[in-house]
Amino acid sequence: MTAKNAFYAQSGGVTAVINASACGVIETARAHPDKIANVYAGRNGIIGALTEDLIDTNLEAAENIAALRYTPSGAFGSCRYKLKSLEANKREYERLIEVFKAHDIGYFFYNGGGDSADTCFKVSQLSATLGYPVQAIHVPKTVDNDLPITDNCPGFGSVAKYIATSTLEASIDVRSMCATSTKIFVIEVMGRHAGWIAAAGALVADQGIPVVTLFPEVEFDQKRFLAAVKAKVAAHGYCTICVSEGCHWPDGRFLAEQGTRDAFGHAQLGGAAPVVANMIKEAMGLKFHWAVADYLQRAARHLASKSDVEQAYALGKAAVEYAIAGHGSIMPTVVRKSSSPYVWEIGQAPLSAVANVEKFMPKDYISEDGFGITDKCREYLYPLIQGEDYPPYENGLPKYVTLTNAPVARRLGAFQL
Amino acid sequence: MTAKNAFYAQSGGVTAVINASACGVIETARAHPDKIANVYAGRNGIIGALTEDLIDTNLEAAENIAALRYTPSGAFGSCRYKLKSLEANKREYERLIEVFKAHDIGYFFYNGGGDSADTCFKVSQLSATLGYPVQAIHVPKTVDNDLPITDNCPGFGSVAKYIATSTLEASIDVRSMCATSTKIFVIEVMGRHAGWIAAAGALVADQGIPVVTLFPEVEFDQKRFLAAVKAKVAAHGYCTICVSEGCHWPDGRFLAEQGTRDAFGHAQLGGAAPVVANMIKEAMGLKFHWAVADYLQRAARHLASKSDVEQAYALGKAAVEYAIAGHGSIMPTVVRKSSSPYVWEIGQAPLSAVANVEKFMPKDYISEDGFGITDKCREYLYPLIQGEDYPPYENGLPKYVTLTNAPVARRLGAFQL
Repeated sequence: MTAKNAFYAQSGGVTAVINASACGVIETARAHPDKIANVYAGRNGIIGALTEDLIDTNLEAAENIAALRYTPSGAFGSCRYKLKSLEANKREYERLIEVFKAHDIGYFFYNGGGDSADTCFKVSQLSATLGYPVQAIHVPKTVDNDLPITDNCPGFGSVAKYIATSTLEASIDVRSMCATSTKIFVIEVMGRHAGWIAAAGALVADQGIPVVTLFPEVEFDQKRFLAAVKAKVAAHGYCTICVSEGCHWPDGRFLAEQGTRDAFGHAQLGGAAPVVANMIKEAMGLKFHWAVADYLQRAARHLASKSDVEQAYALGKAAVEYAIAGHGSIMPTVVRKSSSPYVWEIGQAPLSAVANVEKFMPKDYISEDGFGITDKCREYLYPLIQGEDYPPYENGLPKYVTLTNAPVARRLGAFQL
Repeated sequence: MTAKNAFYAQSGGVTAVINASACGVIETARAHPDKIANVYAGRNGIIGALTEDLIDTNLEAAENIAALRYTPSGAFGSCRYKLKSLEANKREYERLIEVFKAHDIGYFFYNGGGDSADTCFKVSQLSATLGYPVQAIHVPKTVDNDLPITDNCPGFGSVAKYIATSTLEASIDVRSMCATSTKIFVIEVMGRHAGWIAAAGALVADQGIPVVTLFPEVEFDQKRFLAAVKAKVAAHGYCTICVSEGCHWPDGRFLAEQGTRDAFGHAQLGGAAPVVANMIKEAMGLKFHWAVADYLQRAARHLASKSDVEQAYALGKAAVEYAIAGHGSIMPTVVRKSSSPYVWEIGQAPLSAVANVEKFMPKDYISEDGFGITDKCREYLYPLIQGEDYPPYENGLPKYVTLTNAPVARRLGAFQL
């Protein structure tokens, strides 16, 4: 068997460790030149494949590829572009195969979340139908932690560590000021459908912090919420609220969609945190502060979880190893063997079982009052935030790499997206 | 001379390194038992002195005092409580002296910003008048970096490092997504009157990030601002905006005071970042994300600047050394000898020259267009964010100390604040 080329692309919202998976893919491919000649990356994800805008990663120095391990964001560009169904837009899939043929691509590594797994699955099925076999392997990534089968998704552990740490730090700040100043601190975290990240904020309760957590999985009950906050303030003098952006009223409206209008009557400017903070102010008259972490949380490579970085790399590496061993239409997974100590190994799941399946927080991970987490949830979360993995610094700032991203010469005509 | 006791209190908004100054004060005092018998800390700042609610720091184990060096927040509680002028409320000053007498306090160490320096100055003058001499020394602290004479204020360097790092991380996140998704990222930073923290965000321009910075020192000009953003998006495909909470219109209104109303007609929920983001959306229709770092920035001990931590400790240590050498009514300062390499030493300033003087960004630190910083500003800022000084971690989270804060037995009657 002569060596084929590999295609690698990043898809959807980027994370602090998606480049660590890229590093795992590229370094492992480079170690097997007899099987994989070149890794071509899609510029801006799958769009790069469709438009034949490929990046020749072979031209990047080994130390720059190694630096991907500690560089957040998507080094080759990511995209929010969902391939339509095969029926609705067969030409896109045919174009992919056309590009793969033109560049002798035998391996398709797609690094993304649920939608990407579905695309990867379709590519794996199509390649056979269209007479050009490509081994399609999905590398999991998503801060939302909502992919099935795998113990967790790379990207999540680092966000969890960042949110738990930041919530702890801001809470002890408020604790030291609450006698005469701020008594309420609200931090808004990501998670439109699943409360995994909010659950990480709830971990600070173990450090003695009075925290009330608002999950997307629990319908917002204003009366009960205010009572819970009031009780914490009475007992501790202050209260921290960790609110998921997906927290919503019983009728499904997000808290952030309060119908807020600016002076010109324009629609609300967003943010569940200010809504919650204002609600408490009006009910109890307490001084508040609020933060919206937004992209800071998913990009915070400076505080990545070591186990997250290791798994992100290992899953990229495993994807290549599975591919050269002849596998396809799979996603490498993290298999938890034990929580304490945390022991994990790499497994695999068929893409047919991954595509279009969303994993939510189990009911028994949320405490009975709906405002905290259970010991079962703690047992799940703590291993994922273990260890630190600091980037190098230069002149006071993290020394992240920016690749040259030189293009591969085109061989085909243009393609209209 | 027999040993006297020392009083130490934390004042105003806390920082990532104010406890490092406390550590410097207490460890240095412990090294001179012949001069200082005990350090009593005010519970919740100066309120602890007024209400005779003193904490006996002697009862804390040496390792817990050492842990203050890497624990953010105010370990003894801080407060927002400004002593009135001597004329307006002489009884408060008399009460302070009464408490000092009752507990044989010969040293008054006050750790805070501009208001606290003024209080410390008044105490230093009063003690002589009231016939009970106390050596009052101010230990500088403020993330706003607005104290005069000293090269910088402990707390600022760490916020600057955090904001520069976070702005960099979020910016390269957006850079990798901008082809099909978010093109505008807005981060709101602290600084109601001075743009020092916003200037730290502007440092990411040196990493090739297109950033537009909005300072409180520059009146907001919407038309010029939108043109600057548009030009950056045209050239780079995306743009980061670092907006100071103190950014304001020519008539003095803060951007955050846009007159926003919620569905019930209640006043705006705040935040300059969503206002700016929405403004860009309306003018250019670009997808945006925004973050408000709020307390996360000043509490972020996990990313403290090493030079900041060292200076915070050194200033606390110097305060005690100056005191036992007979000085009073002063503030130890950081004196910059050279920027590259950064060489500094400890100096001192008379409190009369510090009290009620605010230091703003020099005009020649802001670029001509008002949206960035000059090389002179860079030369000033970079030394302050040098080096990392990570806290220890346990079970995935920073292992910060919570002191026992045992009270000193009261000797006086109650005092009504």
